[in-house]
Formats: sequence, C-alpha cells, structure tokens
Amino acid sequence: MNPGFTGSPLDRVDHIRADADAYQALLGDWRAKVLGLDGLDPALSPEGGLHWHSLAEVSVETELVLLGLADGKPHFVPLVQAKGGMARSPAVWRALSLLPAEDAAIYGTARSLIDWHNCHHYCGRCGGSTKVFRAGWGRKCTACDTEHFPRTDPVVIMLAEFEDKVLVGRQASWPAGNYSALAGFLEPGESIEEAVRREIKEEAGVNCGAVRYITSQPWPFGGSQLMIACVAEALDDRITLDTNELEDAIWVSRDDVRAVFANAPDKRFGAPPPFAIANTLLRRWMEES
Amino acid sequence: MNPGFTGSPLDRVDHIRADADAYQALLGDWRAKVLGLDGLDPALSPEGGLHWHSLAEVSVETELVLLGLADGKPHFVPLVQAKGGMARSPAVWRALSLLPAEDAAIYGTARSLIDWHNCHHYCGRCGGSTKVFRAGWGRKCTACDTEHFPRTDPVVIMLAEFEDKVLVGRQASWPAGNYSALAGFLEPGESIEEAVRREIKEEAGVNCGAVRYITSQPWPFGGSQLMIACVAEALDDRITLDTNELEDAIWVSRDDVRAVFANAPDKRFGAPPPFAIANTLLRRWMEES
Repeated sequence: MNPGFTGSPLDRVDHIRADADAYQALLGDWRAKVLGLDGLDPALSPEGGLHWHSLAEVSVETELVLLGLADGKPHFVPLVQAKGGMARSPAVWRALSLLPAEDAAIYGTARSLIDWHNCHHYCGRCGGSTKVFRAGWGRKCTACDTEHFPRTDPVVIMLAEFEDKVLVGRQASWPAGNYSALAGFLEPGESIEEAVRREIKEEAGVNCGAVRYITSQPWPFGGSQLMIACVAEALDDRITLDTNELEDAIWVSRDDVRAVFANAPDKRFGAPPPFAIANTLLRRWMEES
Repeated sequence: MNPGFTGSPLDRVDHIRADADAYQALLGDWRAKVLGLDGLDPALSPEGGLHWHSLAEVSVETELVLLGLADGKPHFVPLVQAKGGMARSPAVWRALSLLPAEDAAIYGTARSLIDWHNCHHYCGRCGGSTKVFRAGWGRKCTACDTEHFPRTDPVVIMLAEFEDKVLVGRQASWPAGNYSALAGFLEPGESIEEAVRREIKEEAGVNCGAVRYITSQPWPFGGSQLMIACVAEALDDRITLDTNELEDAIWVSRDDVRAVFANAPDKRFGAPPPFAIANTLLRRWMEES
C-alpha cells in the first residue's frame, strides 16, 4: 500500500507556470477542469470521487491555481477563503475514506496551496500586500517585490525499536485506546536523523542511535507538511514521559501490531487511519520479519 | 564522514523555551555564551573555532535566541540585521573550511534562525508587526496574535543511477568544470520519492522508478533548508536538458567519482565542497560497491 496523499496523476508542468502566454492559453481552454469544494472540503461526485466543474461554472473574479495537466486537460483549484479557520472538519475525514488514492493526492495538493495562500496575504519582510503570481505557485509583494513560494514543513514521525518491540504513544485528546508513532516538527539546523533522536528523547525520554528512513508522504492539514517516517534504534527501553505531549507510551510487538491490523478483539490499541503515514509505518515494520 | 552542519553538541532544551522563569534565569547566567558574528558570518577564534562573547559584552537592547545548553552553559545568538541581504559571502565559505564540524552545526542553526527572523518581521495573515517569543523560537503577531515558527524548506538532492553510472549536472554560473547532484525544492502535495522523480525528469528528461533515501543535512544559506539526499533508479539514460536549469549533465562511473575524490589529474569534474551533502552523497554511492 502506498502512503496516503501520494500518486497524483497530474503533471505539474513547472515550465508553464512562468510562461504567461502558455498559462493564458490554459485559462482559455474549454476542456479545463476546476476542483469542486464545499468550504475547504472536497465536493464528491456521485461515484465518490472528486467533483470537477468547467471554467464556465466559475465566477470570473475567482483566483485559480494550476494544479497540473492530465490527459492534456488543465486542472485548477479556486483560491477559496477559509471560513472559520483551517482546522480539519469531520466531513473531510469521511471523504478521505471514500476518495480513490489519486483523488486524495490531488485534493491534498489543492488544500495545502489554499492554506498557504490564505496565510500569506501580506509580506513577512515589509508588511505590504501580496498578489498571486506563477500560476498560483507563488505570491509577490506589491510593495517590495519579494517573491514568496509555497512552503512545506518537514515533520519526523517514528518508531523507536528495542528488542523487536516498537514504541507507540497517545495524546490525551485522541479517541480512547488509539496509539500512534511519535512525531514532531524538524527544526532549523537539524538533519532528519537528529530530529528523530531529539523528538523521541523529548517526548518519551528514550535514547536512540541509528535511524532508518522508511518512507514519506505529504500531509495537507494545518498547512503543508512533509511527513518523514523512520525507525530509530533505541539504546534502552526506559520510558520517561513528557506529559505535556503524551498521555501514555507503550512498547508493542509485531504480534501486537498484527492484532491491531486484523482488528482482533484483544488488540492492545486502535490504529491510525489508513491515509496517515503512521499506519503505513506500522505496517512496513510489521512486515519486516 | 558525517554530512555537513550536523553534530551540534547543544541540547535544544525545548521545555525551557516556553518556561518564562527558566528562560529568565538563563538570561541572567554569568556563564552564558553569545555567538560572535561579523555581519552574518562567523567570527573565528584564534584557534579557528567559533568565537563566543560573555553576556557582559552584549548591548542590553540586543535580542537573543537560545541556541541551547552545553556543559550547563546557555548558548545564545544575537539577532543581527542582514546588511546588504542574506546572500552567502566568500568569507563564510572560507570559515567553513576551517570550522570543526560541531561548530559548523552550531553556526548553521544560528544563521538559519537569524535569516528567518529577518524575513518575518510582519504577519503573513494580517500584515501586523511581529515580536520575538519562545526564547527566539517563534514570533507572535502584535495585531492578531498569530504565532509563527521558524520554517525549514525540504529540498531533494539526488543521483539518477543507470547501469552503474550516475547523473551529475552543472549550472552555467558554477566554477568551470564543477558538477554536482541535481536538486530542487519539494512542493506541497509531494512525497520525497515523487519530488525526486519530478526534478530529474524536469531538469534532465530522465524517467526514474524506485528511489532510495541515503542521508540528510540542514543547509543554512538562503533561509533554512533540509537537504534530502537520494539515489533514483533511472529507466533509461537519454538526457534531455532543461537549459534554463542546467548547462550540462553527464553520466559518470564509480571510477570517475574515485578520480574526483583522489583529485586525479585526469578527473572528469570538480567535486562539491565537503560541507555540501552532494559531496557526502557522491562518496556514499562510490563506496556502495
């Protein structure tokens, strides 16, 4: 199983973004498709996929971002305002359980771009207002001309491993019984490997050595994140919880993880959803031996 | 050899950043050390390491960021303004060839934080002015209270591999004869693996399949970047250059790379500097068989 939000069929056509004539031609292409949204959530087609409009259905004032091309057709997303903030709605969680993987990947990209635009109406350098440029893949300051580009925050998400068991934790706000991999933002001045060791030490007090990269996925909620999944070799198994971060952390075996994915009646914890990389990470580790 | 800018000996003490009393105590600690800077460049000690001041030598108006603790001593960096922009100076390149790895890692973190603060004096959401909070690991909008945190941009840097050769390219602006791994910013909505394939396809026209992660390092110039080094399995070796990006790209063998690192008279290209991850990536690939 591929990580969630990967596998978009769209060609991002970077060369067209900076080519005003080529981009103008796409904006006048009657085959163009515009992503249907319900607030920030995806509008679903009757078949449970993404719903697409034609350009004729979109107001001429709507700002568009070029997501890319598929089958020669340009695909756009409208830059909608986030009413009531950018938090994830219960509806989007349900939609993601229905959407085909390719559609979830397209929606994830669109959602990250909308969030980024909504947080960058002003220039961080001078406070001037910014406007869309590069087919929606940037904003330019109207006062100082600084160019701003969509950002992605790297997040490390990892299992510490000790004697064929791995460490999973839970936050107090999660549904009862759910556990997942530990995670945290990578900070300036760190490698992936250093961030993994620091986060495990901070949250669970466990010292780690070697770090193995497993896989990655984009995550489009609360901005745009790059989830980097790893397994770290723990040097001991003594847990000292940071109770500001975690309510509990436990060491689980491959049999424990198998019981979770088999949804066995005596499973020790509830799994993260399939489109979260913690799910992929636990499965990959389970299959390692 | 570890990747450049890794191996900082400082404990980042995240728990102190949000604890006003604990932080105040560090600001009053006579053992505290403050990083010496010459503009944005590191000031060097006579021994060729970083130069540190005491708090007594720093003006009381200077804003400080807590880099972390070592041997119980708080280490700070002053938030200096970037006169003449944030471009890398020739002096910093020379300094990096002298600095011990641990000092380069400390400087990299400090430099990234200074750059981030200088680019975020205003709130992207509302245009209000921001002020330092969380011991320098954030800025808060004085108008709308939005909290902003230091950012890091993920960059993929990679070798396409085909029949025991790898692809290296050069930009027209580089010193004559220098070649390096291809690289580019990861975009919202992509995994590391997808970004690697897209960048190689865009810049060199080569289609790739499986992607192997090799290692990572922070890069503190032009903001704060996370360099993610990979090797991608090329499906063919036909190069179609994007001449806006690259002046040339060539397939090189392990013997070619060995000649480069041995600085052989008949070497085919000049190597990236030792503190750049492209150097580490080429060495790791060379040592693979």
